Amino acid sequence: MPPRQRYTEIAAHLRQQIRDGALAPGDELPSEAELCRQFDAARGTVRQAVAVLRQEGIVSSGQGRRTRVLDTVPTQPFDDNISFTQWCLASGVEPGQVTQWVTKRKADPHLALLLDQPDDALIVSVLRLRTMNSEPAMVERLNYAPEFGAHVLTFDTDSGSIYQHLRDNGVQIDSATRIIDALPANQTDADLLGVEVGTPLLRVRRRAFTPDGTPIEASDDRYLYDKASITTTSTRTSPSNTSLVTVDSVSF
Amino acid sequence: MPPRQRYTEIAAHLRQQIRDGALAPGDELPSEAELCRQFDAARGTVRQAVAVLRQEGIVSSGQGRRTRVLDTVPTQPFDDNISFTQWCLASGVEPGQVTQWVTKRKADPHLALLLDQPDDALIVSVLRLRTMNSEPAMVERLNYAPEFGAHVLTFDTDSGSIYQHLRDNGVQIDSATRIIDALPANQTDADLLGVEVGTPLLRVRRRAFTPDGTPIEASDDRYLYDKASITTTSTRTSPSNTSLVTVDSVSF
Repeated sequence: MPPRQRYTEIAAHLRQQIRDGALAPGDELPSEAELCRQFDAARGTVRQAVAVLRQEGIVSSGQGRRTRVLDTVPTQPFDDNISFTQWCLASGVEPGQVTQWVTKRKADPHLALLLDQPDDALIVSVLRLRTMNSEPAMVERLNYAPEFGAHVLTFDTDSGSIYQHLRDNGVQIDSATRIIDALPANQTDADLLGVEVGTPLLRVRRRAFTPDGTPIEASDDRYLYDKASITTTSTRTSPSNTSLVTVDSVSF
Repeated sequence: MPPRQRYTEIAAHLRQQIRDGALAPGDELPSEAELCRQFDAARGTVRQAVAVLRQEGIVSSGQGRRTRVLDTVPTQPFDDNISFTQWCLASGVEPGQVTQWVTKRKADPHLALLLDQPDDALIVSVLRLRTMNSEPAMVERLNYAPEFGAHVLTFDTDSGSIYQHLRDNGVQIDSATRIIDALPANQTDADLLGVEVGTPLLRVRRRAFTPDGTPIEASDDRYLYDKASITTTSTRTSPSNTSLVTVDSVSF
């Protein structure tokens, strides 16, 4: 591995401070002179570091004014992004869960397709209410292929992260696809979340895969609209793996 | 540039067929023998190509069955992703727009920050209803830094894509950050979209930047919930630039 450039290290350090909230949106970055002192670096190096953050859109261009922290679009570790429990802990929120049911059932044809199972496969499904700081936040519908569902059946789903339990049992979760949209709460959602039918929810439908592309899970998470957002960045040269699609073209 | 591997070409070709809808979700891929004929390639090469698509989660693992197309998560060109007009055209939908107003006004402090402008800057703001096949689909609130807003003021905003107009005027749009969430329609949204106040909307707040990181635009697009979704993929090794965040931590 080539040695990491000094300005990359400084940029990473500042990015971490922004992520941790030590530097909040609207805050000025320390002056160039201050940064030079702080990192024992030349002015050109500090400038390069700040240029990296500017390019990422997380600090202002500083033309004629001091450079400020803009909205933060952090790169999230894969595990924080995929696990509600991990995500809450990384966000300083206490996660919780109330299992409604765990069931082994015949997959409907669509779920069978999503999980790459024969139509008569018995899949394992879970309905849980997830809480943030003890308040209702999200309704989770999880469906597992039999091989992975077996681990779920033996797990106390009121005790925490199913992902962590799968990992503890040697399941490698390597990639995920997501479809994000909004929808009105149905009766089940409304009852669990304590809101009226029709309340806006942010839905994330996810499939997770092993390193060889075997589907582990097909899930449907519905967040109360004031509990979660999703951030994303894209550039012309790396157009991002995020796409806007018409609803008709989504088959999930 | 190293020569492109044969299996990469075949994978790209199949990906394109899936993207174009020639192969739809649920369809079987042609058999290996058929693919070998079609591409005049060895069986091992064809297998590698299919393995790539499997790894991307767009075709099934095919264990014991024919390989099928799963849900499609296409990588979208940057311009399709950022422009409603381009996105509709790429999706086979007729885009339209009905301008409500175009105004030059003093930025509020938050918009000034997002556009990296002094607090007394005059920004250019646009409110448009966007239509898909002549039906209300999205309410667009656009805000431009003065340098770029000047081009917007001289543009017939009922005639089409503002992005295209900016590009025609030499503005390079190079990167974007987005915050995605759900919210209930307010009175303005409801009136324009022809729905009741409180109807779920999918909101995409976007900032777009020039190659040197100068903010061009800070916008707020609100889609009727049954008109658009967003798809994304992530893997452990490239954790994606998409993050789930608590609403409190979003400053946009």
